Amino acid sequence: MPKKVDHEARRLEIAEALWRIASTRGLDGVSLRDVAAEADISLGRLQHYFRTKDEMLVFALRHINTLADRRIRGRVGAIAARLGQEPPPRAVLRECLVGMLPLDGKSRVGALVGAAYFARAVHDERLRGEAVEGIPRLAELFAGLLRSAGERGELAAGRSLDPYTEAMLLISLVDGLTAYTLLGVQTGEEALERLDAHLERIFAGGGD
Amino acid sequence: MPKKVDHEARRLEIAEALWRIASTRGLDGVSLRDVAAEADISLGRLQHYFRTKDEMLVFALRHINTLADRRIRGRVGAIAARLGQEPPPRAVLRECLVGMLPLDGKSRVGALVGAAYFARAVHDERLRGEAVEGIPRLAELFAGLLRSAGERGELAAGRSLDPYTEAMLLISLVDGLTAYTLLGVQTGEEALERLDAHLERIFAGGGD
Repeated sequence: MPKKVDHEARRLEIAEALWRIASTRGLDGVSLRDVAAEADISLGRLQHYFRTKDEMLVFALRHINTLADRRIRGRVGAIAARLGQEPPPRAVLRECLVGMLPLDGKSRVGALVGAAYFARAVHDERLRGEAVEGIPRLAELFAGLLRSAGERGELAAGRSLDPYTEAMLLISLVDGLTAYTLLGVQTGEEALERLDAHLERIFAGGGD
Repeated sequence: MPKKVDHEARRLEIAEALWRIASTRGLDGVSLRDVAAEADISLGRLQHYFRTKDEMLVFALRHINTLADRRIRGRVGAIAARLGQEPPPRAVLRECLVGMLPLDGKSRVGALVGAAYFARAVHDERLRGEAVEGIPRLAELFAGLLRSAGERGELAAGRSLDPYTEAMLLISLVDGLTAYTLLGVQTGEEALERLDAHLERIFAGGGD
């Protein structure tokens, strides 16, 4: 199906133009015309692929999330290869969370597109659907990892929270750490140290 | 100094027009002209008070933060009056954090203006200054409360984190909980329950 492939490839090129704008001047006030210019195509051509800015934004966000997902799976796979077995739940959870922080160029662009999405989605119920579906799914995944860790006796002794609550706290935490890193309140390294301090509290091997 | 008072009053009226726009359709693509129309004044008049959208945004954000601060102090004062003494650090910290969540109309508008600020500030170093100064100051305040709680033996037994790290984790957490509440991923009540679960872990009176 070469036609379908072409269509998808062109949509990706447009999404990449959107990312370039998102990662330099941001998407506030950016029009379809601006994105068409950045992608070096006519407005009419762009509208053949995306009718609205929001449609384009959701496509770009989904694609960025897919790429992030692939990078994270790659890193989890590398740990598995190194260990010669399935990595422990803590390592998988940490790779997922670290992959969500803006620590390199790619994850930074993802976070910037995420920031633009956020600013628009709070006012648009249809756009919010993306977060409303994706976040609980992610929280379920994390809750599952926390449950496995608990079954393996790898959670810190003492009071532990309901896994879904803990998962939503982790996702919220990474979201805030990302925001304050993008705002320059802290460096990426500091964000990572803070995340690790929190994970250490959840997982710390016995003794406390 | 009636002139100065007038000037300030007019700036507040304009800021309130900006909030109304922020809390309904958002600030993406909103021009000075749009805000002037909402404030029912001419563009020239508005520009007498604010030269740019960002100047207006920072003023609106500061004012919202001042109002939030006043509400929080009021609630801490009410607890003090009820107890007949200074409230414990945990209660003060909780009031501050709860006051940052979008649980009612006022804090919701504050969070929406904050979202618009965030989307712009990630691309503008001058705008970022607001967060870069304000957040570490808030983290110091929270770290101080955590230190007092520690001295009074009110922190949970076991491993406790460096107070500044704990403070930045709390601020990040509330930021993320706010985002996911605005996006409709969770209700305000759920955000509050999750925050309380985390606070309980930090403060839980002995036994674990």
